[in-house]
Amino acid sequence: MTVHELRPAPGDYSYTFGVAEPALTVSPGDIVEVSTEDCFGGRVTSPDQRPSDVVPFAELNPVSGPIAVEGAEPGDVLAVHFASIVPARDYAISSLFPFFGTLTGTHETALLHAPLEERLWWYDVDVDAWTATFRPTGSGGAPVVLPLDPMHGTVGVAPAGGEVRLVVTPSSHGGNMDTPEARAGHTLYLPVNVPGALLALGDGHARQGEGEITGTGLECAMNTVIVVDLIKGAGPLAWPRIESDAHIMSTGSVRPLEDAFRISQKDLTEWTAELTGLDLLDAYQLVSQAGLAPVANVCDPNYTMVAKLPKSVLGGAEPFGGTHTKLRATARDYLAEHPQPGPRS
Amino acid sequence: MTVHELRPAPGDYSYTFGVAEPALTVSPGDIVEVSTEDCFGGRVTSPDQRPSDVVPFAELNPVSGPIAVEGAEPGDVLAVHFASIVPARDYAISSLFPFFGTLTGTHETALLHAPLEERLWWYDVDVDAWTATFRPTGSGGAPVVLPLDPMHGTVGVAPAGGEVRLVVTPSSHGGNMDTPEARAGHTLYLPVNVPGALLALGDGHARQGEGEITGTGLECAMNTVIVVDLIKGAGPLAWPRIESDAHIMSTGSVRPLEDAFRISQKDLTEWTAELTGLDLLDAYQLVSQAGLAPVANVCDPNYTMVAKLPKSVLGGAEPFGGTHTKLRATARDYLAEHPQPGPRS
Amino acid sequence: MTVHELRPAPGDYSYTFGVAEPALTVSPGDIVEVSTEDCFGGRVTSPDQRPSDVVPFAELNPVSGPIAVEGAEPGDVLAVHFASIVPARDYAISSLFPFFGTLTGTHETALLHAPLEERLWWYDVDVDAWTATFRPTGSGGAPVVLPLDPMHGTVGVAPAGGEVRLVVTPSSHGGNMDTPEARAGHTLYLPVNVPGALLALGDGHARQGEGEITGTGLECAMNTVIVVDLIKGAGPLAWPRIESDAHIMSTGSVRPLEDAFRISQKDLTEWTAELTGLDLLDAYQLVSQAGLAPVANVCDPNYTMVAKLPKSVLGGAEPFGGTHTKLRATARDYLAEHPQPGPRS
Amino acid sequence: MTVHELRPAPGDYSYTFGVAEPALTVSPGDIVEVSTEDCFGGRVTSPDQRPSDVVPFAELNPVSGPIAVEGAEPGDVLAVHFASIVPARDYAISSLFPFFGTLTGTHETALLHAPLEERLWWYDVDVDAWTATFRPTGSGGAPVVLPLDPMHGTVGVAPAGGEVRLVVTPSSHGGNMDTPEARAGHTLYLPVNVPGALLALGDGHARQGEGEITGTGLECAMNTVIVVDLIKGAGPLAWPRIESDAHIMSTGSVRPLEDAFRISQKDLTEWTAELTGLDLLDAYQLVSQAGLAPVANVCDPNYTMVAKLPKSVLGGAEPFGGTHTKLRATARDYLAEHPQPGPRS
Repeated sequence: MTVHELRPAPGDYSYTFGVAEPALTVSPGDIVEVSTEDCFGGRVTSPDQRPSDVVPFAELNPVSGPIAVEGAEPGDVLAVHFASIVPARDYAISSLFPFFGTLTGTHETALLHAPLEERLWWYDVDVDAWTATFRPTGSGGAPVVLPLDPMHGTVGVAPAGGEVRLVVTPSSHGGNMDTPEARAGHTLYLPVNVPGALLALGDGHARQGEGEITGTGLECAMNTVIVVDLIKGAGPLAWPRIESDAHIMSTGSVRPLEDAFRISQKDLTEWTAELTGLDLLDAYQLVSQAGLAPVANVCDPNYTMVAKLPKSVLGGAEPFGGTHTKLRATARDYLAEHPQPGPRS
Repeated sequence: MTVHELRPAPGDYSYTFGVAEPALTVSPGDIVEVSTEDCFGGRVTSPDQRPSDVVPFAELNPVSGPIAVEGAEPGDVLAVHFASIVPARDYAISSLFPFFGTLTGTHETALLHAPLEERLWWYDVDVDAWTATFRPTGSGGAPVVLPLDPMHGTVGVAPAGGEVRLVVTPSSHGGNMDTPEARAGHTLYLPVNVPGALLALGDGHARQGEGEITGTGLECAMNTVIVVDLIKGAGPLAWPRIESDAHIMSTGSVRPLEDAFRISQKDLTEWTAELTGLDLLDAYQLVSQAGLAPVANVCDPNYTMVAKLPKSVLGGAEPFGGTHTKLRATARDYLAEHPQPGPRS
Repeated sequence: MTVHELRPAPGDYSYTFGVAEPALTVSPGDIVEVSTEDCFGGRVTSPDQRPSDVVPFAELNPVSGPIAVEGAEPGDVLAVHFASIVPARDYAISSLFPFFGTLTGTHETALLHAPLEERLWWYDVDVDAWTATFRPTGSGGAPVVLPLDPMHGTVGVAPAGGEVRLVVTPSSHGGNMDTPEARAGHTLYLPVNVPGALLALGDGHARQGEGEITGTGLECAMNTVIVVDLIKGAGPLAWPRIESDAHIMSTGSVRPLEDAFRISQKDLTEWTAELTGLDLLDAYQLVSQAGLAPVANVCDPNYTMVAKLPKSVLGGAEPFGGTHTKLRATARDYLAEHPQPGPRS
Repeated sequence: MTVHELRPAPGDYSYTFGVAEPALTVSPGDIVEVSTEDCFGGRVTSPDQRPSDVVPFAELNPVSGPIAVEGAEPGDVLAVHFASIVPARDYAISSLFPFFGTLTGTHETALLHAPLEERLWWYDVDVDAWTATFRPTGSGGAPVVLPLDPMHGTVGVAPAGGEVRLVVTPSSHGGNMDTPEARAGHTLYLPVNVPGALLALGDGHARQGEGEITGTGLECAMNTVIVVDLIKGAGPLAWPRIESDAHIMSTGSVRPLEDAFRISQKDLTEWTAELTGLDLLDAYQLVSQAGLAPVANVCDPNYTMVAKLPKSVLGGAEPFGGTHTKLRATARDYLAEHPQPGPRS
């Protein structure tokens, strides 16, 4: 079990996904302990600040990386298992940004309205109790204690075709998908588009509702442990996929929302057909009756949908040759030696 | 406890929501035992038939009703509690219709492709075991046993403004929302647009995945028991809402999908503000972090999204003056005397 | 040449399309002189009024009719030729309505913004000069003189399937399509869904830009002359079509906008194939290179797109058996005897 | 009058917009004679070939450039005036690509249909007659002679924020907007995002219908003459704009189509307000009544809409300080000395 550390200094974060000098090189099967900053780059330090005053828009959502994976070639699939994701500070921040979110005019849904009020919410995070506390800011009312459910909003690789994309825009290379399914105990499968894959991650949320309708979750710096693996020749993978102990999941990140939904459902249908031997229409039927469809984000430059199927209907098929099961075991071994806060997953 | 029966004869079903002669008149608080046909009007009786050969399109999705509720006036809210929904036959049917569903060109998403193959799946339904069995039709493979989760795809009232709408199109009057949340133990709140409200329901599904991507669930006739109630002056209600023991839910039924999402999230935000006393932006923040967003349908003439919030974050507020709690108790009393198959909800 | 008059009294307007008692019955080939009210029902009579104060929402957009056409049966096509459309008053009114228009949150694109300011513009209309004059209301600046281009925003028939639709919602039965192509000299083809067809029209605009982005054109009462004709058995017509001397046009009225675009382009492709004998892909190619696509409305409950092809590429084919040419001649004869203001079309 | 030549060799084309070594550096006011390849890179040389057999997808749509403009800095506006665009060969090619176009399932509108037939149309181009001839390929029927209307589908600069984008995707940096308004006699205004701006262009169409519904126009290599200019400090420009002798135009390139429409209409509204001194709602009103909205493309990864206003309603305002008028004069002088085929514009 080789364990690496990636602890970027303030100037070491990346703001794009694309070919760049690796910050770290690892081998398939290795573990990486990685620190990530919050989406504000750690610059919001008090409830009285307005994010738009202290963070230039182009410096939102810094990611840690890129991490090169030895032997990764276009056509392979990169597996990223989240062993542990733990808030690094005792607070998390959520806010409204001008022209960003679901229930506001935006730069794309361009309207003549003035922006909604820019407002900030400061959550106390208690990793021992595994809770975060919401406090009203514009009205009276009691605090509401919410369970933590830490995740990474942004995880991706270098895009294909020589493209370089801002971290804020999720697409087929992953990126800012903002799905709660990127949580500890789950494995994310990403396409390898360039040699080394060039993985990067950030934008931790202590928790987030489906849709991320204000445009932000409980933004916080994270101490995260991932296991990285490579499935040679298993691609090309059209869109990122996720696996948990109980479900397989496909994603689609595009606009409009119905196309994100179509992409995720079609990919899940094809994946189900491949895993079960069903023909495409039988797989379509099975997904139609047994599938779930949790929204990821409806606020980013591309919207993300997740299509989700219980593995119980797959007749024992092992996605990607049992990679998730294997990485889960590696993570369990690691965590036995390095106990982390939070419920056992 | 007044109990009515509504058992339509073959010629007694309705195909539109609008002002029409009531099939039954009830008082607030009454129970109705209602029989509903499957979406094919019961005309598909063998796995060898093609639905499009035996059912004219205009006769799909028959509903039982309308049921007039005494005293219901525009501005009131109608509560429909599902006490029990039980498949009436030992089979359920799912099929692909030409140009209907998520992963096909449709009459609205008009393309030049030939239709997908029209295919039918025949599910064995076992109400004692509370299961339905999927069998591949185009490929080999073992049957897959799925748990039942019966629901009504279509529940609605007469629209406002003198409109008459086909049963297939969900909108602000409810109708064919096709959400699994219309299940036993849940209460649906509908606007009252005309005197008597004129409730009708049908389109039972033995179960359905989120999105109903093939365009059909496990279509089957149902024996259903509802409790009907009226909340005077609680409206006007812009869109149907749902309540379970654990959650409040708002719906939006419109195209495109992002607008259905926006409507449901905005309504849930406003409802949360009203229940908690939070201002609108605080409620927006709370929903953003604690909310769920299960897709209902992405196949009907309008798409339906559900926005869902745990009641645990509401500080003990009682939606609609505790109507759900009251109707749940009525249902429990009824079911104690008239036991029904299925798990105790 | 039989000429009818339809001059509704204030209480005689309709607010829905659906089966109703005809206000007038005509024969194919007849001429109808029809008066229509403005979209405010004539209740806004001074620049100081706010439409939302004087017109209930349900009474916007009154239509004149319905006109029954003798012999019209489902499957026929109704032709409505606009011989002349002339503003009936020396003013026209445009306004912003709360939550209505392209560049504002709406009831469907549901956001948390306060509505834009409700504002009214009063245009002087000069039918001799054939102009209308825009005057700024919120800022200084010179008046701008615009040419008249009168049209009817709302023209439709009773929908199929027993539906009754509000006048404000365009769909396959026509209705509030709000396209400038419904102007004098053009012929509109509508499906016949019920015996008699039940034509109604209103919502005259002295002119309107493509998209009707504020939600209103230069709203004004009209004195209009139409020639009505029937093409037996030429249907069923999926969507309304339009013909001018120079172009054939297909329409699509649905959301989202890309589906309205797809419907209109597919219909034009199929119509072109039928008129020319080209196969579908050749027709698709020809439309792709020679077609125009003017937006009609992006503000109504359904959006409307127009797909337009020069008749010069059709090799002399006569749409609907030369109906437009025939009705144009009838109109010319009528106008020779009853000269109307405006340029000779 | 300084005249440059840019004649890329086969290996010299670019496939992305982003920071790269300039192929040419020019000064504001200079003229560039530029050769562009067709979207197939010139590899389709006979009607019997299938583009997908001879051109890798990643090598579609090559552009000539980038051209650095001396003195260009972020915040400036780059003006590109098309003096002349003339087909370089006596043929143009159009084709259907699998899963590309308006009336087909695509990689984003992901469906289960097999692709439409891949088919190619070979147009004879006659620059003296200024025509191109359509010949049916799947059905009989006479050829159809169409007028030439040459344009560049792809014209753009390096994006902001360090992004690199495939040439096929239009966005705020311009790129593959595929609007017929990029024709001779018109001036395109682009944002300057990086020092030198880094202009590139290609994808000439001998003509194209609005929407480019098959996904291709009459694709052909071009001999093009542009005049390049810089308006210092006139930006930042949110989206590309266009000016002709008669109109100002704004563009929006995004999905869904209604957002592309909203962006273009909002930008035109703001531009109109700025040019006339009207407040925003007065400008909104004026655009609503006098504006046009021709579709550009509904096939590319982002859709493009154009919003268009007659300069006659602007009270004599000179956009960008009269740049178009000045470049028009420069072009006229150049063309007087270097006559080109085609109608005098």
